[in-house]
Amino acid sequence: MIRYATAGESHGPSLTAILEGIPAGVPVTEAYVNKELSRRQYSFGRGERLQYIEKDTARILSGVRWGETLGSPITFQIENKDWENWEKIMSVSAEDQQEKFRLTRPRPGHADLVGVLKFDRKDTRDILERASARETAARTAVGALCRRLLEELGIKIYSWVEEIGGVVAHTETLSVEDAFSLAEKSPVRCPDKKAEEKMMDAIKDAKANGDTLGGVYTVVATGCPVGLGNHTQWDLKLDGRLAQAILSIQAHKGVEMGRGFDMAKRKGSDLHDEIHYKEGRGFFRESNNAGGIEGGMSNGEPIVVRAAVKPLASLRKPLRSVNILTKAEMTAEIVRSDVCPVASAAVIGEAVTAIALAQAVKEKFGSDSLREMQDHLTRYKEHLLRF
Amino acid sequence: MIRYATAGESHGPSLTAILEGIPAGVPVTEAYVNKELSRRQYSFGRGERLQYIEKDTARILSGVRWGETLGSPITFQIENKDWENWEKIMSVSAEDQQEKFRLTRPRPGHADLVGVLKFDRKDTRDILERASARETAARTAVGALCRRLLEELGIKIYSWVEEIGGVVAHTETLSVEDAFSLAEKSPVRCPDKKAEEKMMDAIKDAKANGDTLGGVYTVVATGCPVGLGNHTQWDLKLDGRLAQAILSIQAHKGVEMGRGFDMAKRKGSDLHDEIHYKEGRGFFRESNNAGGIEGGMSNGEPIVVRAAVKPLASLRKPLRSVNILTKAEMTAEIVRSDVCPVASAAVIGEAVTAIALAQAVKEKFGSDSLREMQDHLTRYKEHLLRF
Amino acid sequence: MIRYATAGESHGPSLTAILEGIPAGVPVTEAYVNKELSRRQYSFGRGERLQYIEKDTARILSGVRWGETLGSPITFQIENKDWENWEKIMSVSAEDQQEKFRLTRPRPGHADLVGVLKFDRKDTRDILERASARETAARTAVGALCRRLLEELGIKIYSWVEEIGGVVAHTETLSVEDAFSLAEKSPVRCPDKKAEEKMMDAIKDAKANGDTLGGVYTVVATGCPVGLGNHTQWDLKLDGRLAQAILSIQAHKGVEMGRGFDMAKRKGSDLHDEIHYKEGRGFFRESNNAGGIEGGMSNGEPIVVRAAVKPLASLRKPLRSVNILTKAEMTAEIVRSDVCPVASAAVIGEAVTAIALAQAVKEKFGSDSLREMQDHLTRYKEHLLRF
Amino acid sequence: MIRYATAGESHGPSLTAILEGIPAGVPVTEAYVNKELSRRQYSFGRGERLQYIEKDTARILSGVRWGETLGSPITFQIENKDWENWEKIMSVSAEDQQEKFRLTRPRPGHADLVGVLKFDRKDTRDILERASARETAARTAVGALCRRLLEELGIKIYSWVEEIGGVVAHTETLSVEDAFSLAEKSPVRCPDKKAEEKMMDAIKDAKANGDTLGGVYTVVATGCPVGLGNHTQWDLKLDGRLAQAILSIQAHKGVEMGRGFDMAKRKGSDLHDEIHYKEGRGFFRESNNAGGIEGGMSNGEPIVVRAAVKPLASLRKPLRSVNILTKAEMTAEIVRSDVCPVASAAVIGEAVTAIALAQAVKEKFGSDSLREMQDHLTRYKEHLLRF
Repeated sequence: MIRYATAGESHGPSLTAILEGIPAGVPVTEAYVNKELSRRQYSFGRGERLQYIEKDTARILSGVRWGETLGSPITFQIENKDWENWEKIMSVSAEDQQEKFRLTRPRPGHADLVGVLKFDRKDTRDILERASARETAARTAVGALCRRLLEELGIKIYSWVEEIGGVVAHTETLSVEDAFSLAEKSPVRCPDKKAEEKMMDAIKDAKANGDTLGGVYTVVATGCPVGLGNHTQWDLKLDGRLAQAILSIQAHKGVEMGRGFDMAKRKGSDLHDEIHYKEGRGFFRESNNAGGIEGGMSNGEPIVVRAAVKPLASLRKPLRSVNILTKAEMTAEIVRSDVCPVASAAVIGEAVTAIALAQAVKEKFGSDSLREMQDHLTRYKEHLLRF
Repeated sequence: MIRYATAGESHGPSLTAILEGIPAGVPVTEAYVNKELSRRQYSFGRGERLQYIEKDTARILSGVRWGETLGSPITFQIENKDWENWEKIMSVSAEDQQEKFRLTRPRPGHADLVGVLKFDRKDTRDILERASARETAARTAVGALCRRLLEELGIKIYSWVEEIGGVVAHTETLSVEDAFSLAEKSPVRCPDKKAEEKMMDAIKDAKANGDTLGGVYTVVATGCPVGLGNHTQWDLKLDGRLAQAILSIQAHKGVEMGRGFDMAKRKGSDLHDEIHYKEGRGFFRESNNAGGIEGGMSNGEPIVVRAAVKPLASLRKPLRSVNILTKAEMTAEIVRSDVCPVASAAVIGEAVTAIALAQAVKEKFGSDSLREMQDHLTRYKEHLLRF
Repeated sequence: MIRYATAGESHGPSLTAILEGIPAGVPVTEAYVNKELSRRQYSFGRGERLQYIEKDTARILSGVRWGETLGSPITFQIENKDWENWEKIMSVSAEDQQEKFRLTRPRPGHADLVGVLKFDRKDTRDILERASARETAARTAVGALCRRLLEELGIKIYSWVEEIGGVVAHTETLSVEDAFSLAEKSPVRCPDKKAEEKMMDAIKDAKANGDTLGGVYTVVATGCPVGLGNHTQWDLKLDGRLAQAILSIQAHKGVEMGRGFDMAKRKGSDLHDEIHYKEGRGFFRESNNAGGIEGGMSNGEPIVVRAAVKPLASLRKPLRSVNILTKAEMTAEIVRSDVCPVASAAVIGEAVTAIALAQAVKEKFGSDSLREMQDHLTRYKEHLLRF
Repeated sequence: MIRYATAGESHGPSLTAILEGIPAGVPVTEAYVNKELSRRQYSFGRGERLQYIEKDTARILSGVRWGETLGSPITFQIENKDWENWEKIMSVSAEDQQEKFRLTRPRPGHADLVGVLKFDRKDTRDILERASARETAARTAVGALCRRLLEELGIKIYSWVEEIGGVVAHTETLSVEDAFSLAEKSPVRCPDKKAEEKMMDAIKDAKANGDTLGGVYTVVATGCPVGLGNHTQWDLKLDGRLAQAILSIQAHKGVEMGRGFDMAKRKGSDLHDEIHYKEGRGFFRESNNAGGIEGGMSNGEPIVVRAAVKPLASLRKPLRSVNILTKAEMTAEIVRSDVCPVASAAVIGEAVTAIALAQAVKEKFGSDSLREMQDHLTRYKEHLLRF
């Protein structure tokens, strides 16, 4: 069973994550994890100052020794490089409390108001620090380790941006690998050059107006063996688990598998992926409308997930709100933020997909060492061919 | 903690569900549960024979006494009324095995092929019996009990169909209550009379062609207090949990919260629901683009979930497949099925939403008796007004 | 992941259990399960009428077809053979409520009083029906299926009684197999003939006096591979999980692993099981003071668990109590019961041990079919020899 | 839901724990947590050098601000003060691997051998670092926070040592508070002065002989309201959960509730705690043989848990073992260790008891803020008096 939890306030001394259940013997370096953190951070239209400060690096504090996982819990710690400026504001000690630091104007679209009401706090910072999307840096570190495991099993994860601020990219004719490698070079993670330009213009416009933009991205996982997830109980189904993973990312409002909402418009006879067989290859499909999942289980085709991200709720052009202490109507707090987080979101989407798939792999294959897991997978693939 | 599991093969002697964690003292009858089961069953375009046989009723075998829940696990049993015709085919005993009953032509779009490979079975019935959407009858019974609890707390759940086979209904101007009561009277669960007619035509057409149709529906929950779910950890966020609940329903391929994918096209300044306050009413909003969820928590506005259902994969016009024993290409098994399950799916969507909300309510308010839970809720609402 | 839940009131229409995660392809019959149920029921000193009525049989309602598990949830249903006499008392319907059926005098040592206070009920039957040890019939059925799985992997589970009412058996010189087979023939499940006689006398005495007796039993599991359970996190340790399984059985008040409490009296140098190695056999021990568990993991030696059972709290010689409605002091309700349940308890102890071990096996080896699990185990045993 | 995980190798850069689900508003300081860590560390007979190095302090890295919990995950970090001497041996980087650091002689009674076999490692350090009882420092920090919460609800936790190396203390006549305050002043945590002296002699003897000793301790929790835990499902019962918590502590081999194993020797009529009632006090007992738990739920009397700790398996007088690489018989690795950890173990036993009780409290009362939880508890206590 692979489990994980993250902890940490956005401007606290550090983010921390503990990841359990990774088999022993997986080769990994801090540099590998940090590459994923930096993929998450780069994006066109992020506030410049923000980008500088957030240059995150994760330190691995447990569970890895001499280049390999040990099978024990893995701790990631991402220090706040700007901590010296926050020591008083985020101090553990009651003595550091100062009225002037209090935030009282909740931002619409954020956890601020709901959180202070639920947890009975009189300072929205007590909520927004944890609700902040900065928490996804910790999830990205966890996802990096899971991705490392999956790579050793032949499973790869890709993403690219499909849409920003209403500008839609054309990616249908690209292979997964090409779409990904074009996206890796694009400031907005978009493989379609024409769309990319328009997206960048839209972001510049939004920035000029103190506004924000959302978008849509696609994550694809290739190399998944048949039979991850389980049709037998609601909470074991792979599509449900991927959906939870995606919609648990801050600012995500929609998710679909394969052709998703578009499927609702079509006829059954056009849609289902017919079954073929070839000696030496086993069963296969020539289409993938299902997005690699049937009956809540992977079917051996690429798993395709699309996600909708809302425009960020932290606007320089502030929205109307109410002071939680005085109840006077006023504008919401302005907190430094990005204009358009979709490119980053796609990288986070990769990370949570990696985690969900690693969990399903561990359930199917058990194993306490990578060697054992690889052996189980090999045996299973032989079974599939022999079936 | 509210937990549940369902069990049972589609043509086995019965479906069973065990539901735990409902407080004691919730008034409930079998008739109440059965009304939900029959709401799930009625829909235009369902195969007639099917509808007759499936006239499900649930018996409550534990956890309810003299009209009230006891706080102990609640068992629902839904008997297969056609069991006498299946006793041999689905027998527990090895002696009843007969070659002629074996199914070997997996249906694309179903769990059939993946399942036999994963579980190493040589009969697709060993998989399709459990993967069948008939399992949702058990989830509907569980959902009915959760809905009963929620009603006692002032939370109501509604649904209607938005789209079938590409025909889109117009429902924007209707109140939730009106949309629901019109839907309750519609053969396709659609509150828009004009769209309803076109949907019925589309279904008739599809039926005539041995084809199937999918669609989109909306579920709304009103009366949820501020603060269900939790922003503090990925797996506690209410939107992620609702997304898992919805995408774990058979044939569901997409889910969105509030304006969902449409949000990706818009500007932040147009979108976020500004905050207001009135003495005696507390904090409130005048729009609900977020669909009642901010920061992974309910914000007191109606929770709005939309779901995409694919056209059923059981077609009378069969798809190409491969015999799992001989590996010869042939058409897939034909299994009796509906043409368009969207109206039923909406009722199931209500059920799983009810379950997810009841779970979140129990987490927030604890409580072993309904009286205690109502008291905790009342105290909390007083706190919200006093805040 | 193997999960299970039981449901059902003692005198309700039936007990039900749902067991998930058993791989497909495990051969099993209802007769096999029922043999375990009858082992649980037989014991000297049980009330005769009780024994007759309780002659339990479990029906398997799902998850098994044609003699093999399907990998889907398995439902066990144990009907109440005396249901016709309880239909009104335990009815789901409010119309059947009658004042005369109400129980108001809680029995010390039972859940009665705590339960009515916690769940806010005015009838101790609302609690005692679920708290009753009859629930363990459902756990025994679940355990039987897990035992069946373990047998296919070479793991066997034994038990015998060590002590009743202060009479201590001498079993040190017996092999596990001999102790078990002698116990199977003993009316008090005791392999020591001399002690058996004294135990039976003690039970007769207690019965004559309207009193009850407790005792101690041992459960042993042989054939467990090295490495079930996990040292890496508190809730994964096998000893902790076995301890929870045992102390969650009604009336159990103590549990120990290997030499347990006796270890606390000894020196480290006398106690730890030294390590040896032989080509073809691998690592092994010549003593087993640890009871087969080191560092929270099985070490390949027999797992040895001892449990203490208190004298039943249902006495014919009633204890002092208070009427929950009037608050008047009076004697507690008298509910028909056994004199000494230790022999039955040992069989239940076997069942919950089987469940805990099956869970640990599934974690280590994953697998969706028995064939796959056996293959993984074989590969692992080869690895242990090759290490 | 209160959840937690610990991470960290014994000589790694730090231990880390993440604790979730503590309500907001609980006043706490690092000093409070560190007091518990130092209570865990002090004990007669611990190796002196060890004691110096291990002078642990926990830093709180998240979830607490300005002296109060926020409701978000709380991170504890306990740095290894001797890290500079371990940087190479425990390095994350493959470049630091050196053959000379490898440990190959597994210690009987430890996870060493089982672990290398299970996780396929060729260095017992890869296992023993995580299996080490030093991990309990992290659990103690988690327990300290839970204890802080419980204190705010009127629940207090005590412990003392009952037995070391066969020397049994007499504590029957002492009140819980007296036994505790005497124990706090005793080098072996024993409230009986005479026994204390003999225990210290026994420890000195063992130390002189390179041997180790175990023992027995008692943990008591007072002030628990009626109804923590739940009789309705096996894994919700409070006694089972406490048993798991205790037996998941390193070197613990037995656990009992109330009179435990001694109950097995007695008659039912002598044993069960009769029920009384007094206006203004409600229901109560005049004895507490059950140890405060009936039917898997707290009954309002003090919860009494006794635990057996084995003599440590790290002996200066080494045991026979086998080199895992060469398979040659040789003595086991000698790792610096304590002679008798029972006094420390009792403090750890307090910590895990605090955690298990806090979890049960959160289940019963829900709540996101301390104020809300206190209100729920007050309302419940009023209900108990009014019942």
